[in-house]
Amino acid sequence: MNTEKAAAQPPSARTRVRRYHWLADYEQDTVKAILDAVPLCHVGYTQDGLPHVTPTLQWRDGDTVYWHGSSASRMLKAVRSAEVCLSVTAMDGLVLARSAYNFNVNFRSVIIFGKARQVTDPAEKLHALEKLVARFVPGHWDALRPVTEQELKATMVVSMPITEASSKVRTGQPIDEDEDYGFPVWAGIVPIVQTVLPPEADPRNLPGVAMPASLTGFHIG
Amino acid sequence: MNTEKAAAQPPSARTRVRRYHWLADYEQDTVKAILDAVPLCHVGYTQDGLPHVTPTLQWRDGDTVYWHGSSASRMLKAVRSAEVCLSVTAMDGLVLARSAYNFNVNFRSVIIFGKARQVTDPAEKLHALEKLVARFVPGHWDALRPVTEQELKATMVVSMPITEASSKVRTGQPIDEDEDYGFPVWAGIVPIVQTVLPPEADPRNLPGVAMPASLTGFHIG
Repeated sequence: MNTEKAAAQPPSARTRVRRYHWLADYEQDTVKAILDAVPLCHVGYTQDGLPHVTPTLQWRDGDTVYWHGSSASRMLKAVRSAEVCLSVTAMDGLVLARSAYNFNVNFRSVIIFGKARQVTDPAEKLHALEKLVARFVPGHWDALRPVTEQELKATMVVSMPITEASSKVRTGQPIDEDEDYGFPVWAGIVPIVQTVLPPEADPRNLPGVAMPASLTGFHIG
Repeated sequence: MNTEKAAAQPPSARTRVRRYHWLADYEQDTVKAILDAVPLCHVGYTQDGLPHVTPTLQWRDGDTVYWHGSSASRMLKAVRSAEVCLSVTAMDGLVLARSAYNFNVNFRSVIIFGKARQVTDPAEKLHALEKLVARFVPGHWDALRPVTEQELKATMVVSMPITEASSKVRTGQPIDEDEDYGFPVWAGIVPIVQTVLPPEADPRNLPGVAMPASLTGFHIG
């Protein structure tokens, strides 16, 4: 996968790059669909002049993306009010071309640039955390042991507007050089999907507690 | 997932953090196993003082990690001889605890810090690219239309030693507060795996070309 081949050139560029079309897409709908499908994100930030990347979960509420962690988190302390690059990627398949040069990856990706903001209002923070749980298990929040004030203090939530955002999507079969279609080698795609397996109950569950019904709708990718 | 809860504290810390054990692992074997399992990586770098994160494929040869792209790639031009943070993460499952606070993610992750180096020797570059194809389809390289000199020039390969590297792995059921095990709510894990679906041949394949046999062993995660 080379998500930059496209970005480096305008759509009209008369170069090899053209074969990758103009993948960059600033449509908010595409950006949001990818954010909603892929909870894992990689947060890039600079500390002492050095690049850092931390994997964490992101979730969306309207035009805002959130992530969270311990209030002691080095990453969260570094990113509040700092420039951040948040990256979300699904690898959807391998693309076998007739030449190594045209091997590729089918993928969906989002990049969001911006300044992260710490969510300090307790009500907004609680609402954001409820949204995170609902991303995976809608309706389950009210069944949980309620959040304590101390836990809320020990948790930091940050947010960033989904404004300076772009997506890239590649799908489909390889695009080979015209003359290579006559070369006798197999080409094709190998799709990759994220599969959610059946839930495994904690052996320490109390007798009779029921698995949340919404968990059967849990989907990734 | 909060991969930093553990990193922020020494193993002996008598804090809540302790529940996450000491996830950070500097064992090279663990680092390499995760790199080999998860080809998608996120490369973090700083450009004009701002953080950037680019998704791409990484592959390993001994104690060295490689990635590549177009020679015109903004990311590759920025990272050669620059400080880089390379992050590889597999989200292996969702961990439903009895409190929102103890919700978690099962995951495997690797972080490598270092300076990237551009691979300029043509033989080393070709060898590295062959390794990339072999990561997915062992033995297929020789069946492909051979790489041209122009293609090799148009491709940049960079590498980084796997020295300043660490891994983190979380597995298993939630770890709740002692008193919460009596709270009547379902807890458990929902495993997530990456599934490779059956290959789909390019409709433009020549009649009679056979799918590479090694493709059936293709596995991610």
